[in-house]
Formats: sequence, structure tokens, C-alpha cells
Amino acid sequence: MHIAITGAAGFLGQRLVQQLIASGELRQQPITRLTLLDQVEAPLPENPGSILVMSIALDITAPGALECVLEQRPDVIYHLAAVVSSAAEADLELGMRVNFDATRALLEGCRVQELTGTRLVMASSVAAYGGELPDVLNDMTALHPENSYGAQKAMCELLINDYSRRGLIDGLVLRLPTIVIRPGRPNAAASSFASSILREPLNGEAAVCPVPTDLAMFVMSPGKVVDALLHGAEVPGEALTPFRAFMLPGITVTVAEMLEALHEAAGEPARSRVRHEPDPRIEAIVASWPARFETTKARQLGFVGDDSFKQIVDAFMSECGHKRVNA
Amino acid sequence: MHIAITGAAGFLGQRLVQQLIASGELRQQPITRLTLLDQVEAPLPENPGSILVMSIALDITAPGALECVLEQRPDVIYHLAAVVSSAAEADLELGMRVNFDATRALLEGCRVQELTGTRLVMASSVAAYGGELPDVLNDMTALHPENSYGAQKAMCELLINDYSRRGLIDGLVLRLPTIVIRPGRPNAAASSFASSILREPLNGEAAVCPVPTDLAMFVMSPGKVVDALLHGAEVPGEALTPFRAFMLPGITVTVAEMLEALHEAAGEPARSRVRHEPDPRIEAIVASWPARFETTKARQLGFVGDDSFKQIVDAFMSECGHKRVNA
Repeated sequence: MHIAITGAAGFLGQRLVQQLIASGELRQQPITRLTLLDQVEAPLPENPGSILVMSIALDITAPGALECVLEQRPDVIYHLAAVVSSAAEADLELGMRVNFDATRALLEGCRVQELTGTRLVMASSVAAYGGELPDVLNDMTALHPENSYGAQKAMCELLINDYSRRGLIDGLVLRLPTIVIRPGRPNAAASSFASSILREPLNGEAAVCPVPTDLAMFVMSPGKVVDALLHGAEVPGEALTPFRAFMLPGITVTVAEMLEALHEAAGEPARSRVRHEPDPRIEAIVASWPARFETTKARQLGFVGDDSFKQIVDAFMSECGHKRVNA
Repeated sequence: MHIAITGAAGFLGQRLVQQLIASGELRQQPITRLTLLDQVEAPLPENPGSILVMSIALDITAPGALECVLEQRPDVIYHLAAVVSSAAEADLELGMRVNFDATRALLEGCRVQELTGTRLVMASSVAAYGGELPDVLNDMTALHPENSYGAQKAMCELLINDYSRRGLIDGLVLRLPTIVIRPGRPNAAASSFASSILREPLNGEAAVCPVPTDLAMFVMSPGKVVDALLHGAEVPGEALTPFRAFMLPGITVTVAEMLEALHEAAGEPARSRVRHEPDPRIEAIVASWPARFETTKARQLGFVGDDSFKQIVDAFMSECGHKRVNA
């Protein structure tokens, strides 16, 4: 079992690599080889055991860049490399090149190598939705993206579905909810606060909440997202038709519920570290993201979300070695 | 008012040219120039009056092919050129090149020339729909195409919407119902019978109906499709957001109703020229096309469909100089 991962140096990629090494197998077969691809060399995991891990720095937008990897006929490809939404919005050409053209080149490379049995798992996003949405979205809700990142992801979904339908590859695309609680530091993403207002107080630091507390979001923990990526390699291809892209089962939670979970887990001192400073610009962006989904297809296929927001907070605290005040 | 038309030698393109010449104006401005583009030289219209008509044979997939036209800064571009569904299914590369890459090159050409005010009207198709569809589709029904032609059209919709959202072009995409009654002869399209079972009997010839008579289709007459293309140039851009692709208001009609309309228009002799010879292959394809739509957006924007199937038959008979038996 040879697994190749693009975007392997990213937060999700690194976590996926750790999980694959910990599990040691995928599709009931022992993992023998991992090929990590990113524009910088992805860090080599500690204790890979008998798994041969190679980390290659390359520009996936360069012609033929992936050829040397595809020639090795990976059994599973995780395609996580992407230019994030703010960068794709700032630079249309860059977004098209990385988010769309590189995906197309990957598909064409698979076709040339006749990797008809290779499972390709790609990450799409809630950002692919937009426009005049119903209160509760489902698997048949149209993608009317209002940002270039979402448009590029939606185009990739169509392409991967068509290549899979033609039997050229065995692909699927998982639309990810907003990932909460991300580790690390705040970043420029509009959704950054959703991790910040929990992570920083739990770490004894101050945080700013820029949105009204009744704002609802559709979220999933990093652990469940990685579980979904693993499960995405396992689902039989026949079960994926007629359309191989769908939303993962996040949970709907309001900011008030997130802060209440923080309060319960770490007490009033932690909760009081969150300052409310409305930022209409951030509110406008985040409020446009759908927060309620019936994720029937994902659930039928065995994808599992978090049970509760408390579980998300507990998982983060446990990973960081924090203890609940009321435990 | 300079109008450029790709696919101008096709059935719709030629009819659009005739209608533009007959009207003499678009967007309340006199038409001064028509540029007809196709892989073969589109026939020059008779009696163009004071309108300068140029017909250029070119391969729109060749690098920079459209540059000479876009440099002339057309006010409206009709993008009708496409590889049809059966050909796109037979040859993925050809379909991607003509249906997708050429559209992208057209958009990029418009961006380079800064044609931000140019109205681009593209034709998409009912073939972009597929998968597990509801009984009645609406403007928020997802596109899950089950053919490469539909996938390529759906990708173009996303791209045109994104370029328009960014203010690089002023585009819209009209999803066309099955066009009935097409002139000419039967062709290899699965939907060919839908025109044949009316056109041939009205012309005194035999025809074969390969599908059960309770099969329903979503149809529009050639005249109303061309009217919609003209109206597509007139709709204000602001009214098109948030998503600039939608289904035109066809009408739902069963094959039995089509044959009944034939009977009423041309009597039992005409009706008896239709022989029933089931073809499961054609039935499977045509039955997979959705037949019932709420086309709210198109109607709100002022697009108008046929009143009845009788009107469609009457329009065809009138164009051909046929007389109704009961008129």
C-alpha cells in the first residue's frame, strides 16, 4: 500500500501522515510507503516503523511535476494541496493554476499511467456553497460559489466525478466543514476566530470574538476530518455513484454554544478571556457560509462527525494536556 | 453595437443571425456589425442592410484564435460553439478542449482586452443535470452530470459566474431545454426522435418513435430559444446575481401529448406515419433527462417559453408553409 499526499506539509497533511503511521494500514493492507509532496519539504514523521517515507519538495503546477510520483503507481492519493480562499480571491491566476490546473494535471497523469484502481481523495470546502441557500442544505443543493476558491473547488469536483465515471480513476471529493479547533496561531482566514476563541483562552491567553454570539457555524474537529480522509480511502467506489462529491457530517453550533462549552471545560476565568469586538467585515463573510446540512450521503457511506461540541473541546484539551475544571 | 457569435454556422447560430438582422437592434442600440465565427465559414445572411457582417473560419481551440475578434471589442458575444454530447463522450480530450478550454480562453481574452462591459451569453444544457434528481427541479438543484458534455458545461457555468462576479466580464449562461421541432434531418442525438416524430409526418414522411408514449420531456421551440438568446443580451447584469446560470422556461410534454398535437394539426394520415419501435438504449438516455422544472429565476428575469405544444407545432408548420387540417 503506497500512499501519496499533496499538501503534506500543511496542518491536515501532517496530521493525516501521523494517523496513517499510527494505524499502519489502509484498506486492510499494510502501508509500505508514503510519498509526501509539498512546495516545501514536509517534515518526516517520527517512528515510521517499516514504512518507507519520502518527502519531496516540488511545484505541482510545473508541467510533469507529478510524473515521477505517478510512475510509482500509488494505491491511494490524497490531494490536499491548495491555495487558500483569501489568496485565491486576491490572485485569480494563482488560484486557477494551483487549485484547478494542478488537479487536472494530476487526473491526466493518472490517466496516462492508467491508475484506474487508484483511489483519489480530494478536499473541497463549504466555501463552494453560496447564493440564495435554503435554511437546511442537502446533497442536492446547488453549488453557487461566491468566491474563486469555491468556484475552483466546485470545478474540480465535476472533473474528478467525470474522470471517475469514465473509469479513469477511482475518486471522491469530501467537502470539509470549518475545522475547529485548529492548533497553532490565529491566521488571516475569516474563520480564524472560531478556533481562537477556544484555543487562546484554554492556553491562558486573550482572544477576540468579532461576530454576534447567535451566529451558527458548521464545524468538525481536526481528528474527525482526518478520520474522514482515512475512511474516504476505504469506501467502495460503487457506493459513491452517481456523484462523488458531498459534504461531511459536521455539527451545527452557535458561537454562544462554543463559548458555553469553553466555560464548562475551563471555567469563568477562561471564558472571561474572550473579548467581544464586532467586526462587520468578518461577520459578513462567515454569516454567508451555510451552517445547517442534512449530510445523508456521507452518513450512509459511514462517515462520522463529532457527537457534540463538548467532544471537540475535550479532544483538543486532551491533545494539549489540559484538564477540565469540572472533570 | 458589435455582436460576435461563436458556432455561428450551427442551426441555432444561423437562426440567431437571421433574427438579429431582422430586428436590427439589441439593447436599444442599432446593430452595426456582426462577426460570425465557426470552424467552417458561416453562411452570410441575405439582406443584412447596413450591418457589416464578417464570417471567419477559425479553430477556437488554437492559441490566440479569438484575439483578432476581441481586439475589436464586441459589445455582445454569443458563445454557442461546442462539441455535442455524443462526441464529447467519445473523446474526452476533444470535449475538454472545445467545450471547456476554448471557453476559458475566451474569458481570458476578454480579461486581457478589459471587456468588462461586454455581455457574454453562453448556452448550457439540460445534460448538465443528472444523478438522484427530485421530481421537480428548481434553480437550486445541484448539477451532477452523468456525461462529459454536461460536466464541461457545468464547469464553464462556474467559470463564467466567477469571472462575472469579479467584474472581468458581464456574463450569463442559459441552460437550454430539448429543442423541438428542429429543422432538417434526423441525426445521431438521442433526442433526435423528438423532432422526427413531428417533422417527418408533417412533411409526409414516415418516422419511428423509440420511447414509450408516457415519457415526459422538457422542450422549447427554436423560436423561443432564439428569443431567449436575444433577451439574454438585454437583462441587466445586477439582476443576474448571485448565480448567472439557470434553466430556461421550457414546457413539460409527454410523447403522447406531442403525437396528439400532431394528430390535431395534420390529422390521422400524419399521425399514422409514426411507427412505434421501442429502443431501450434511447429510452434509457432520454428518460434520465429531467422533464419538470420550476424555472423561477428565468421567469423573473423575463424569459418566456412556449405557451403550449400546439404553439410549437403551429410555429413549425407556419415556417414550413404547412396548413392545419382543422384551421
